[in-house]
Amino acid sequence: DPLLKVFTLNSNPKLAEEIAENIGTELGKCSVKTFSDGEIQINIEESIRGCDVYIIQSTSEPVNDHLMELLIMIDALKRASARTINVVIPYYGYARQDRKARSREPITSKLVANLLETAGATRVVTLDLHAPQIQGFFDVPIDHLMGVPILSEYFEEKKLDDPVIVSPDHGGVTRARKMADLLKAPIAIIDKRRPKPNVAEVMNIVGNIEGKTAILIDDIIDTAGTMTLAANALIENGAKEVYACSTHPVLSGPAIERIQNSKIKELVVTNSIPLPDSKKIDKITQLSVGELIGEAIRRVHELKSISVLFD
Amino acid sequence: DPLLKVFTLNSNPKLAEEIAENIGTELGKCSVKTFSDGEIQINIEESIRGCDVYIIQSTSEPVNDHLMELLIMIDALKRASARTINVVIPYYGYARQDRKARSREPITSKLVANLLETAGATRVVTLDLHAPQIQGFFDVPIDHLMGVPILSEYFEEKKLDDPVIVSPDHGGVTRARKMADLLKAPIAIIDKRRPKPNVAEVMNIVGNIEGKTAILIDDIIDTAGTMTLAANALIENGAKEVYACSTHPVLSGPAIERIQNSKIKELVVTNSIPLPDSKKIDKITQLSVGELIGEAIRRVHELKSISVLFD
Ligand SMILES: Nc1ncnc2c1ncn2[C@@H]1O[C@H](COP(=O)(O)O)[C@@H](O)[C@H]1O
Ligand SMILES: Nc1ncnc2c1ncn2[C@@H]1O[C@H](COP(=O)(O)O)[C@@H](O)[C@H]1O
Repeated sequence: DPLLKVFTLNSNPKLAEEIAENIGTELGKCSVKTFSDGEIQINIEESIRGCDVYIIQSTSEPVNDHLMELLIMIDALKRASARTINVVIPYYGYARQDRKARSREPITSKLVANLLETAGATRVVTLDLHAPQIQGFFDVPIDHLMGVPILSEYFEEKKLDDPVIVSPDHGGVTRARKMADLLKAPIAIIDKRRPKPNVAEVMNIVGNIEGKTAILIDDIIDTAGTMTLAANALIENGAKEVYACSTHPVLSGPAIERIQNSKIKELVVTNSIPLPDSKKIDKITQLSVGELIGEAIRRVHELKSISVLFD
Repeated sequence: DPLLKVFTLNSNPKLAEEIAENIGTELGKCSVKTFSDGEIQINIEESIRGCDVYIIQSTSEPVNDHLMELLIMIDALKRASARTINVVIPYYGYARQDRKARSREPITSKLVANLLETAGATRVVTLDLHAPQIQGFFDVPIDHLMGVPILSEYFEEKKLDDPVIVSPDHGGVTRARKMADLLKAPIAIIDKRRPKPNVAEVMNIVGNIEGKTAILIDDIIDTAGTMTLAANALIENGAKEVYACSTHPVLSGPAIERIQNSKIKELVVTNSIPLPDSKKIDKITQLSVGELIGEAIRRVHELKSISVLFD
C-alpha cells in the first residue's frame, strides 16, 4: 500500500528494518542529524502527504534525545500533511514515574503522553508498559502488545525440566501467571520484606521451587539488582537452575557485571532496546519483536483486531 | 514576599543565585538528578502550594536534557498546586528552527512553545529571541527582555574612538540600529552575496567603516563563522579595530579557536548561557543579566510594566 509509510529514527534502526521487511515495504527517507550545538535537525526526504505514517522509536537511553527526536519528527510529519501519525514505541521510557509516590513529584509518564499528543501523534503502539494503567494517560487510541508469548515460546522450545515461573516481586505476578498459563507451569513469588528499618531485606519464597527449573520474569531489567538477588535466593532455596527473562533490556550501570557474576544461567530479552556490543554477552539471548510489531502495524492499517497477537 | 519562589535547574545555577539575591530571596529547595538509565528525577523539597513560582533554565546545550528538566519541573509544580508557573528562559534553544525554510521541515521552536504550555507554564520570561515573532508561538503571556542595553552600556564606558555598529547580516539590522541609537553611532551592514552557485560568497560592506572602531552585534554566536569572517572583512576594508558582541554565547564546535585566530579584539557576551572553563578565554568578556532578570521578575510579580527595562 503506497499510503503506508514506515520511518525510523535513531533508537532502533535495525528493528525498524525488520518491521519494514515484515510489512513488505522500505523505510521512508528522512535525515535525522544534530547541529554543532546539539540541536536536532530533521528533514523528511519524500512526500508523505495523505499517508498513514508509522514512526519506530523507543524512548530508551539517551531518553531525552530519543524523545525529542520523536516529538520533532511528529511535528514535521504533521506540517507535511500526513493523514495519520502512528508512533510505535517498543520501549516506553519514563514509565516508572507513573504516580506520585511522594509529595511534589512529577508524573513524567503522563507528561510524555501529553507531549506526544501535543506534537500530533494520532495513535500509539507500544509493548509491555511498566504499568498497564499508562494506557489511560493517552487520549488517542493505543495498542498495547505483549512480549510474554515470544519469551514463552523460546522457553517452550527449550523443553526445560519441571519449570516454575517466578515473579521477582509482588507487582509482577500477573505477568508470571500469563507465562505460567502458556507454559502450563506453576508459579512462585519472591516476597521481599524488611523486618525493621535499616535492616537488610529478607527474601522469602512463596511457592514450591525445590529441584525445579526457575524462570524469573520481569518487564524491565535495568540495573539487574532485583533479578540477580532473586536468582541467587532461588538457588539457595533449592532451585536446580535459574533462567531469567524480561521484555526490555535497559541494562544500565552495573547490570552486565551483576548478571555475569550471578547464578542466572541465561537471560532472555527482546530487541525493544538494541544492545550495544558492550552488553552482548554469552549469557544474554535477544529475541526479535520485529514480526510481532510488523504484524500489528499491518493489522492496524487494515483495521483488523490485534487481539489475536496475544496468545 | 513568601509567595514568590525562585527555583533553578541545571543550566544556569550561578545566574539563578544572582537573580535570587537581586530579588532578596533564597533559591527554593529541589533535587534534580538522573537515574542510572539517564531518566531525570525531580523532587521539590519544600511546599509551594499557592505560590508564584519562577524557574530559571536556559535550553542551552545539552538542549534536550535541559528542556526535559524544565518540562518535568513544570509538571511537578503543577501537581504540587503552584498558583502560577513562570518559566524564565534566558536562552531559548531551537529558536533558529522558527519557520519551514524547506518542505517537510519541523518548526521546532513552535513545538517547544506548545510543549511548555502543555506541561503547565503560565508565563514565559525570555531574552533576545532569535526572531521576535517567536513571541506569537505562545498563547500564555511572554515578557521579552533585551540584552542590547547591557552590551551598549559596556561599550559606552569604554569610550571607543569613532565607533560604528555593524550588523553581520541583513537579519540583524534592527538590533544594530538599536545599539547605534544608544551609543549615538552610525551603522553599517555586511552584505553577503553569492555571485553564482558554488562560488565563494563576496563580503560587501554597506556603510562607512574606514578608520573607525567597528562593533559587530548579533543575537547568537554559535560556531562563530559569521562573526569572525565579518571581523576579518572589516579589517581588510579599513576598520581600525573590531569588537564583537552577542547576547547568547552558544560557542559550539570550532568557535573558540576561530575567535582566537580572528581579528576580533574583544567579544562581549552575557551569561544567558554559562561558559565552561574551556571557553573562558582572555578575548571574551561576560556580562551578567542577573540584575535585568531579577528586576523583571520583581516587576512582573508586582504587576508593574517591564518596558522601563528596555532603555
Ligand atoms: N528510571 C528509573 N530508574 C530507577 N528507578 C526509577 C526510575 N524511574 C522511576 N523509578 C523509581 O521506581 C519506583 C517505581 O517502580 P515500581 O514500583 O516498579 O513501579 C519509584 O520509586 C520511582 O521513583
Ligand atoms: N542549532 C542550529 N545550528 C545551526 N543552524 C541552525 C540551527 N537551527 C537552525 N539552523 C539553521 O539556521 C537557519 C535559520 O537561521 P536564520 O536565517 O539566522 O534565522 C536555517 O537554515 C536553519 O536550518
